[in-house]
Amino acid sequence: MRIVVPFKSENPKSRLAKILSRKEREEFAKLMLLDLLDVLKSFDYDIKIISPAKIDLDIDVKISIDKRSLDECINDELKNIPVAVIMSDLPLLNEDVLNRFFNTKGDVVIAPGRRGGTNMLLVRRSGFRVSYHYGSFLRHIGIARDLGFDYVVFDSFYASVDMDSEEDLLELMLHGKNKRSATFLKNLGFSVLFEKEPRLIRN
Amino acid sequence: MRIVVPFKSENPKSRLAKILSRKEREEFAKLMLLDLLDVLKSFDYDIKIISPAKIDLDIDVKISIDKRSLDECINDELKNIPVAVIMSDLPLLNEDVLNRFFNTKGDVVIAPGRRGGTNMLLVRRSGFRVSYHYGSFLRHIGIARDLGFDYVVFDSFYASVDMDSEEDLLELMLHGKNKRSATFLKNLGFSVLFEKEPRLIRN
Repeated sequence: MRIVVPFKSENPKSRLAKILSRKEREEFAKLMLLDLLDVLKSFDYDIKIISPAKIDLDIDVKISIDKRSLDECINDELKNIPVAVIMSDLPLLNEDVLNRFFNTKGDVVIAPGRRGGTNMLLVRRSGFRVSYHYGSFLRHIGIARDLGFDYVVFDSFYASVDMDSEEDLLELMLHGKNKRSATFLKNLGFSVLFEKEPRLIRN
Repeated sequence: MRIVVPFKSENPKSRLAKILSRKEREEFAKLMLLDLLDVLKSFDYDIKIISPAKIDLDIDVKISIDKRSLDECINDELKNIPVAVIMSDLPLLNEDVLNRFFNTKGDVVIAPGRRGGTNMLLVRRSGFRVSYHYGSFLRHIGIARDLGFDYVVFDSFYASVDMDSEEDLLELMLHGKNKRSATFLKNLGFSVLFEKEPRLIRN
């Protein structure tokens, strides 16, 4: 099995710009990537990070700089199966979740994100194509169905929480104990206020 | 195993009042309960619905009218273990998820909801107490830990999506094909607009 991790190092997570500066977002994105790599280490798989720009990180993982669109990059990767595509902003993933994911049978295994996204994708059969823009989850299901591929929806809360919005950061603070990215937010002054429904505050 | 399902029939889901009338919310809540019962039917467990007021539903399930607080009701139920407490606003649950849940080992198994809630709880050992107000997930973990109980976090996207906000309805529309509650929203004129990030609209 090969693992491909798309990563955006420059001005990432722009939807978080209201609460995190660009520099903070760039650091946060890197730490989420490291959180993911920490978990992936336990698996003996080939890992490749794909990024449109150089990544300033000292890691022992293959990095491929590729300026093409995400879909073009991934469709190229799908020529060499089996392959899993895992987004780099899923810091709540742990070994159990990935074990269950890698062991889920099916030509195509799709882990949905909130708001209709595809957070993890495992492809075991040639001919599948990705289409990652908005609402990709239902589109990927449709593509699998049109091809007559056997597909499975992978049911995971931790895989569903990608870091797009303030609400997602709240989930990281609630569930991400000991994660580098959660510690980073804590050190920036973020905490969870429990007086009513838990919400994120920054001191 | 016994299954307890807390249900609120009068003025439920008040956070959805901006987009659904009281009558619509009451109907929606009932249909979500029926969606859950549809799935629970496949399991040969004793089911009991607990509600503070009469429920106008023709179903072959025990209903207990109990005006005490949710915590008092559930703590009473925990005297008779093993018992699973499943919230009634989880229409995305399916047989696979519940199978996995019921078969997860541990004195206490907790399925988190978004924003720190506890959506499903399985208790196999005497002495556990619930505390369901805001932020219950971490509190329940703390209670299990203080008791020296073996607890497991149950990782499920479908179990995490309780219907509290407009964003949750979007998830139901995206993932709830053929569910009674999703069909109800569709018939009210709700649909998902895919022009950019998927969002909910009502015609």
